[in-house]
Amino acid sequence: MTPPTGSLPTASTAGSGLRTDVRVTRVDAVPFSIPYRKPLRFASGEVHAADHVLVRVHTDAGVVGIAEAPPRPFTYGETQASIVAVVDQLLGPALVGRSLHDRNALRAAMHRTVGNPTAKAAVDMAVWDALGRCLGLTVTAMLGGGAGRPLRVCHMLGFDDPAVMVAEAGRMLADHGVDTFKVKVGRRPLELDVAVVRALRAEFGPGIDLYVDGNRGWTASESLRALRLMEDLDLSFAEELCPADDVLDRRRLVRRSTIPVLADESATTPAEVTRELLSGAADAVSIKTARTGFTVSRVVLDLCDGLGVEVVVGNQVDGQLGTSCSAAFAAAHPLTAARAAELSNFLDMSDDLLTESLRIEQGHLVLPVGPGVGVVVDEEKLEHYRRDR
Amino acid sequence: MTPPTGSLPTASTAGSGLRTDVRVTRVDAVPFSIPYRKPLRFASGEVHAADHVLVRVHTDAGVVGIAEAPPRPFTYGETQASIVAVVDQLLGPALVGRSLHDRNALRAAMHRTVGNPTAKAAVDMAVWDALGRCLGLTVTAMLGGGAGRPLRVCHMLGFDDPAVMVAEAGRMLADHGVDTFKVKVGRRPLELDVAVVRALRAEFGPGIDLYVDGNRGWTASESLRALRLMEDLDLSFAEELCPADDVLDRRRLVRRSTIPVLADESATTPAEVTRELLSGAADAVSIKTARTGFTVSRVVLDLCDGLGVEVVVGNQVDGQLGTSCSAAFAAAHPLTAARAAELSNFLDMSDDLLTESLRIEQGHLVLPVGPGVGVVVDEEKLEHYRRDR
Repeated sequence: MTPPTGSLPTASTAGSGLRTDVRVTRVDAVPFSIPYRKPLRFASGEVHAADHVLVRVHTDAGVVGIAEAPPRPFTYGETQASIVAVVDQLLGPALVGRSLHDRNALRAAMHRTVGNPTAKAAVDMAVWDALGRCLGLTVTAMLGGGAGRPLRVCHMLGFDDPAVMVAEAGRMLADHGVDTFKVKVGRRPLELDVAVVRALRAEFGPGIDLYVDGNRGWTASESLRALRLMEDLDLSFAEELCPADDVLDRRRLVRRSTIPVLADESATTPAEVTRELLSGAADAVSIKTARTGFTVSRVVLDLCDGLGVEVVVGNQVDGQLGTSCSAAFAAAHPLTAARAAELSNFLDMSDDLLTESLRIEQGHLVLPVGPGVGVVVDEEKLEHYRRDR
Repeated sequence: MTPPTGSLPTASTAGSGLRTDVRVTRVDAVPFSIPYRKPLRFASGEVHAADHVLVRVHTDAGVVGIAEAPPRPFTYGETQASIVAVVDQLLGPALVGRSLHDRNALRAAMHRTVGNPTAKAAVDMAVWDALGRCLGLTVTAMLGGGAGRPLRVCHMLGFDDPAVMVAEAGRMLADHGVDTFKVKVGRRPLELDVAVVRALRAEFGPGIDLYVDGNRGWTASESLRALRLMEDLDLSFAEELCPADDVLDRRRLVRRSTIPVLADESATTPAEVTRELLSGAADAVSIKTARTGFTVSRVVLDLCDGLGVEVVVGNQVDGQLGTSCSAAFAAAHPLTAARAAELSNFLDMSDDLLTESLRIEQGHLVLPVGPGVGVVVDEEKLEHYRRDR
């Protein structure tokens, strides 16, 4: 008895005081490569260059929204070339002609393609950026976060000798006031990593916040042993120490750990978050806009809010554009701004695409100011670093 | 080592292309009373007049946002006078001077007052309405829903004789094309209600969608017996047949029911939704903007999305303003627009406050067009029906 939608009565919007609609005309994906000054090494891989993709959403208002897609093949199965292909061939065509105001429809349209989280997230964020530019609003304000909350920064320390990692932490503290560190662990013998964490705590005392990230490098038993050896080191979180697909072992680890276990690459969609939390495979969740964009990151956040678990805003080894996106999201919500967010990886890159560099001062990211995500691409730099010409 | 927030480096927004901020200057609450042409009777009470409260959020942009608070003492413990008092004395003062763009902070500020869901929800919705008017956007678009999805309407049938209830359903079908009915049940002997549902199915055949709402009127055993007696009547949902505080009995009901059990007054906050769903006391959740506003309704929706359960947009016996709010929310999301929403109670009121009446045609609500929630209060009607002068 339901009539076809096309025949439903609708009211005209003429003279209603409503803004004109804005629609997607084109989505493009530009691969670029910027070398790292210092490679980042961790249990599941290492990064020597930012072989990322700039995603641009063009609109019929003439405004262009931007975002950055950092491929991580060993976590999501995406490469720079696959992201370009998926945006060009699937996501872009699915969005052309659609309204920026109907982001829920854009999400559904992109969801028809399975996987490819980083490609989808970048398109989603570029849509929000474009809309913010049209409206003269920051993404943070669009997310209900007003002018944004101050964001403490957590710095990630990749594999190295204890003395080198302590020196890097010391520089971050002295130069940027950063006092929260995520230490990459998961090596064998695990005493290598325990020695690093112990050296950090010995050097900086109780004034710094420390957590560890195993990137699935250990077994559950090794993880429990490592946690036991670090019991006196006051860790805040233990992230992905062992694989989530070690199903029973992972639950045993979580049940017996006195440190809250943070799910990252095991909880990349709302359904995965539900599965991992409800099966007892995690205590808290890392949110990365690089893989869930703004639209789905908020679903994950609301899910964690409703389930009553903590979140950390993580880093997919983002460049400055990606970091700006993470920050726009993190600054909008009390729950995400409650803890230091992982926003400093860009410091190890030799350059970036933006006209103005992000800054970390007094331990906090200085939030970009401007509509959308708040940053602008330097066209000359893009010409220099792009790899498609 | 974290510096006080006041001393953090911040960038100036001058010349940034950002819109000027908009702040709350005053919140007022106007009690009004509009008689019902036909009272609505159900297991937990009956409604003879809409003794509601108009909530208005005034801003320094000169724009005023509006929403409607319908007190339901037997569900939430609120009365018309308590809502006026809480808005005047607690919620309003907590919001004055704050930015409409920082709705997450407004939520936190209101959350300091315990309970009073209807008062808080109306203030929240009036904030969104004001912001939509400032931006020239509908609330539906602000929620990411573009121009909105078509909304099928479900009509609620209050207690009466089978013939009277069948006649009312027939009128709704003939006059408005409405083909989804929620039948109030929970009377004793329960055969009274079973007879009504049977009469409806006999009269209209398989072409209509039927579900039942017990408003906690039965025990779990009575509920199971009633469901058994209605097993051949193809019900879509069974809502709050017995009290959620009958903890074990309710779980037994849900475990044994072949009809999905819809939680309404037992799941009025994100935490309650989590508790009821995870304890096996419900299969699906009713979302009412009248009690969770737009901000928290979206948290509930995202929570249900992430947990993988269905939602229904319910009705707190709203007037047209409240119905417009429900519709603005329901039309924004694929999950809420997937099923008929309860949007027709206003038809039984003798009048309303709006300049232009809502319409239900071809089974669908005609969405108001205009910024914010899209409707305007008729000042003469308000003068006539207000009860504070």
